[in-house]
Amino acid sequence: MIIVMARGASDADIAAVVEKIRSAGLAEHVSRGTERTIIGAVGDERTLTADMFEPMPGVERALRVVKEYRIVSREVHPGNTVVTVRGVPIGGKAIQVIAGPCSVETPEQMLASARAVREAGCRLLRGGAFKPRSSPYSFQGLGVEGLDYLQQASRAEGLPIVTELMDVRLLDTFLEYDVDVIQIGTRNMQNFDLLKEVGRINKPVILKRGLSATVNEWLMAAEYIAAGGNHNIIFCERGVRGFETAYRNMLDVTAIPVLKRETHLPVIVDPSHAGGKAWLVPALAKAAIAAGADGLLVEMHPNPCEAWCDADQALNPDELATLMRELAPLAEALGRTL
Amino acid sequence: MIIVMARGASDADIAAVVEKIRSAGLAEHVSRGTERTIIGAVGDERTLTADMFEPMPGVERALRVVKEYRIVSREVHPGNTVVTVRGVPIGGKAIQVIAGPCSVETPEQMLASARAVREAGCRLLRGGAFKPRSSPYSFQGLGVEGLDYLQQASRAEGLPIVTELMDVRLLDTFLEYDVDVIQIGTRNMQNFDLLKEVGRINKPVILKRGLSATVNEWLMAAEYIAAGGNHNIIFCERGVRGFETAYRNMLDVTAIPVLKRETHLPVIVDPSHAGGKAWLVPALAKAAIAAGADGLLVEMHPNPCEAWCDADQALNPDELATLMRELAPLAEALGRTL
Amino acid sequence: MIIVMARGASDADIAAVVEKIRSAGLAEHVSRGTERTIIGAVGDERTLTADMFEPMPGVERALRVVKEYRIVSREVHPGNTVVTVRGVPIGGKAIQVIAGPCSVETPEQMLASARAVREAGCRLLRGGAFKPRSSPYSFQGLGVEGLDYLQQASRAEGLPIVTELMDVRLLDTFLEYDVDVIQIGTRNMQNFDLLKEVGRINKPVILKRGLSATVNEWLMAAEYIAAGGNHNIIFCERGVRGFETAYRNMLDVTAIPVLKRETHLPVIVDPSHAGGKAWLVPALAKAAIAAGADGLLVEMHPNPCEAWCDADQALNPDELATLMRELAPLAEALGRTL
Amino acid sequence: MIIVMARGASDADIAAVVEKIRSAGLAEHVSRGTERTIIGAVGDERTLTADMFEPMPGVERALRVVKEYRIVSREVHPGNTVVTVRGVPIGGKAIQVIAGPCSVETPEQMLASARAVREAGCRLLRGGAFKPRSSPYSFQGLGVEGLDYLQQASRAEGLPIVTELMDVRLLDTFLEYDVDVIQIGTRNMQNFDLLKEVGRINKPVILKRGLSATVNEWLMAAEYIAAGGNHNIIFCERGVRGFETAYRNMLDVTAIPVLKRETHLPVIVDPSHAGGKAWLVPALAKAAIAAGADGLLVEMHPNPCEAWCDADQALNPDELATLMRELAPLAEALGRTL
Repeated sequence: MIIVMARGASDADIAAVVEKIRSAGLAEHVSRGTERTIIGAVGDERTLTADMFEPMPGVERALRVVKEYRIVSREVHPGNTVVTVRGVPIGGKAIQVIAGPCSVETPEQMLASARAVREAGCRLLRGGAFKPRSSPYSFQGLGVEGLDYLQQASRAEGLPIVTELMDVRLLDTFLEYDVDVIQIGTRNMQNFDLLKEVGRINKPVILKRGLSATVNEWLMAAEYIAAGGNHNIIFCERGVRGFETAYRNMLDVTAIPVLKRETHLPVIVDPSHAGGKAWLVPALAKAAIAAGADGLLVEMHPNPCEAWCDADQALNPDELATLMRELAPLAEALGRTL
Repeated sequence: MIIVMARGASDADIAAVVEKIRSAGLAEHVSRGTERTIIGAVGDERTLTADMFEPMPGVERALRVVKEYRIVSREVHPGNTVVTVRGVPIGGKAIQVIAGPCSVETPEQMLASARAVREAGCRLLRGGAFKPRSSPYSFQGLGVEGLDYLQQASRAEGLPIVTELMDVRLLDTFLEYDVDVIQIGTRNMQNFDLLKEVGRINKPVILKRGLSATVNEWLMAAEYIAAGGNHNIIFCERGVRGFETAYRNMLDVTAIPVLKRETHLPVIVDPSHAGGKAWLVPALAKAAIAAGADGLLVEMHPNPCEAWCDADQALNPDELATLMRELAPLAEALGRTL
Repeated sequence: MIIVMARGASDADIAAVVEKIRSAGLAEHVSRGTERTIIGAVGDERTLTADMFEPMPGVERALRVVKEYRIVSREVHPGNTVVTVRGVPIGGKAIQVIAGPCSVETPEQMLASARAVREAGCRLLRGGAFKPRSSPYSFQGLGVEGLDYLQQASRAEGLPIVTELMDVRLLDTFLEYDVDVIQIGTRNMQNFDLLKEVGRINKPVILKRGLSATVNEWLMAAEYIAAGGNHNIIFCERGVRGFETAYRNMLDVTAIPVLKRETHLPVIVDPSHAGGKAWLVPALAKAAIAAGADGLLVEMHPNPCEAWCDADQALNPDELATLMRELAPLAEALGRTL
Repeated sequence: MIIVMARGASDADIAAVVEKIRSAGLAEHVSRGTERTIIGAVGDERTLTADMFEPMPGVERALRVVKEYRIVSREVHPGNTVVTVRGVPIGGKAIQVIAGPCSVETPEQMLASARAVREAGCRLLRGGAFKPRSSPYSFQGLGVEGLDYLQQASRAEGLPIVTELMDVRLLDTFLEYDVDVIQIGTRNMQNFDLLKEVGRINKPVILKRGLSATVNEWLMAAEYIAAGGNHNIIFCERGVRGFETAYRNMLDVTAIPVLKRETHLPVIVDPSHAGGKAWLVPALAKAAIAAGADGLLVEMHPNPCEAWCDADQALNPDELATLMRELAPLAEALGRTL
């Protein structure tokens, strides 16, 4: 922690800051400049916060030097972590594409989806049984019945399943239905009680970025899961809120290399929710892979025009197959496989 | 719903849209312009969504005409709703200031806080027993013990209490400890399962705005609560995320008159979280009241420098008393009381 | 400047940074912590920039300690500066409301505007002769003819005039037509050649905030003007770009107290461009004054429905008169006059 | 134009809107729904603006149906436009990488830069003689002397040059020094007088996106240039302002496919200014190309640590050569050449 004193801070102000640093078990290092005095706190900075110092008389601001995240940090774990889902590695050389419909609708729709996903060459299936909808009057998902259809489709085609958990009370149910990867959605990125609960199990977790979460907040949300003991975390960038109205969200492609530098955990991208339009998915998917993403989360529906939600952003099976064919040479050019 | 067809849409494309409108029980109204054909859907638009039409061939975009919120809308309830908390009216002529510490720390701190709040002329007490912290290593609140201290302070000074509920499993506990107003925090504005649960009780709810929630999303979140039967909802603007780094969040003062026009429910403002600095609170508090807010939610701590969280934004008792004195003539100039 | 070295930075890396600090004429202060070494540069930091250090081996980041602005800074000029325009003081106890139409249209419209402005009790007249329009096909302003009509209206009613300069080649023409205050618009806040030119004259300048300019960038833009010798600068907050679609721009009311703390120069607010709707103007105007603004810039048109631009945000003469009547007690409650 | 009437709009209100549509030479189409009456204006909508209708009694809002841009629109020019710069095509199958230093410093530095740029396989040289700096105390560029050094380097290595024009008064000087492509910078995207002037010549123009410009505003800025007769316009995405603090700007990769759909003109990307760090450039460059960009604008300096500005984001010659080698297979995988 560096504490910058205001111009005109008194000796007593400086002494009080020094006393506070010492009482937290650290040592101080005082540097008197021509315009400002700067005080460094030497020792384990993680016991200090800026607002321990900023309200003190004569303090202008306090700056953290060391990042707050530990377990998820690449600094403490330099190599890449590969999260394995029923034999499918995420975060290794192979790029993984998780595909499936926005919402589980019927057993037939899920079976058709799973078949199309497998035939396109994807190795993981997604589908929502519980849907976070901005309106209480919109379709809220089939609920537990949806988990059942997901499980059937998963078994029929041999694909592990990814589905979103919104309510902490349903975690046991998710485990009963053999959900392979639990997705924490954008709106729950800082639902800390939910994070703590999924931190207590050992299922892989996809942690979507909050609508306007900074990379630091996102890493700290992952740290909540990791601190509980579950280190099988996959980050998923899905577009952030911006000022632009020409498309739904702004895909933050820069977050991919920044995350890969800051954390050892895998990073995937959801180009469907980012752009909000099926025609944007191929360009965004390619950009994500080129920027270093370890995989994609793509919406595909056997018949998009009849989808019960987000119809406008789902690829159809042919479009998914085409995308996979186009991604293959790209992956190769980047030294990866698909 | 208005469906704008793309230039060059075929007669078959138009016929398909018309068919879809009819099958939803509405009538169509086709307007062929020189550059575009526009189709209006006449009837109850709330059964339609834009993405039912946007993926169809020849459709450029679909636009909603009627707002999605119903119960919270001023259109269906033109008069102002006053939410009464143990006799204290929120949303009437009187401006209410809810004050207290960020987090409940000790019985003594809460008693001192409650006394200072009452002496300053405020009629409601706030304090956090469960704290949403961005780091898992930060103080997470005293939990149930904190509810106990809150209750003691409330009884001692005769002030109703406001405190944040984060975990749906704790709702019964909150009721046992006589929490008067349940606060739903910024990070949980779209925690739909939590909204549904507080919609089933009849306690007043303060619904804070999500970090980058649009006014429409915020009204729809309130509609979740209202749809469950609980219409005692108070909106709380607390600053949104922006690009500026000179202060913590950007207080969206424009949202106040916009909300007052769109909804009949009370609107309050939290100037402490908005600015993130105690010295900004008076200016922001005055701006909020001048813009039409029905009340404030202000952090006050008996000894800010020793606060266990957000120390930098808490007023001390003297500063709160000064603020109340300064707000009184302002309220009067605006035709209100304090 | 504080330079934070990366974990694992070598002694040679540290020595290189020290050498660079010394070669810039400053002294170093090295603090070796348990996790990071921190180097302070002691002396006149303004000769250093972060990117002198950040590309060096072993450097994690460099942080400025002292603000970059000098002349406009309150640190070097603690008292408030009052800018006087033909006897009208801006930045003193009296709040000044500058009003008039978006664009100058006809001599009659300007005369009617000026009369309404004076009758409402305002002391300065605005009107645009050159209009920055997002479309090349929109009305671009009357040009020099508009300056003539402005001058006539100004003389008829005895009101100083404020009008926007977009093209550096027209500065002399503005001076010929006795423009009293030159407005630099949002889109030109960082048109540095224009800033340098208005810095060479001694006319008061209203500097509007760029659409997404930080407070620091805005202060630095003012510093461009001040560095040329013209210290008669008035800041004008007019709403920034945000994610919200319920209104045009987001009025950044927090910027008012932040600016008043950072600079000695006056700060006014344009509630018309901020909200983009006439019905929002009174609430935003009151919020601005309550937050500490020294004045307002308000659009008023004798007949808003017939205005040639921005018709939707102009008050009519009655609405302006009503606003002034409502602002008077507010100003008084705040210890100011109108 | 579609005009949505408010609930409860009277027949007289509707009649007034109809009259206004007719007086503009269009025909009306009135659709009375169950909740709202909607009025369509049939004819050339470009003579109408929303604010002609929104202030009228009984009008809720007015919506444009047709885009405002014409010449730059793909709707009127379906094929791709290739802009040729001294024989180098931009916007065709070949991806073009424009490289060079942030600022022109010395003849030797520019010659070394040009040689490195050519040796890396790039075909265009960039360098700034006039620099838009946020501080008046920062190096402002060498000015005309810099144009001279640029010209020498260009002739020595046979590379066309790209450089930024900030001041309209210097346009003739730019032409004298054989500048091949005029760059309009981020801060001047809506400097309409500057756009009009470069619209009158026939030199290619790179139009950088404003810091928080929407795609629509950007296209309209290009329309200003095109309306003057100069259709040789190249869009350059360079990152927009966002809330994230982990890097400088947020590269809006989605804007690339959106622009390619809306306009026939070439689109390039500046990964250096987007990320603000040299280590981010390769990932962002690859993402841009994968998303469909026609080229890149990359900062390279013979010795980044000694660069006079933006040292932290410049590649060195080896890094540029490596980037070009990595882009080649990527371009091929995408069906393009480098």
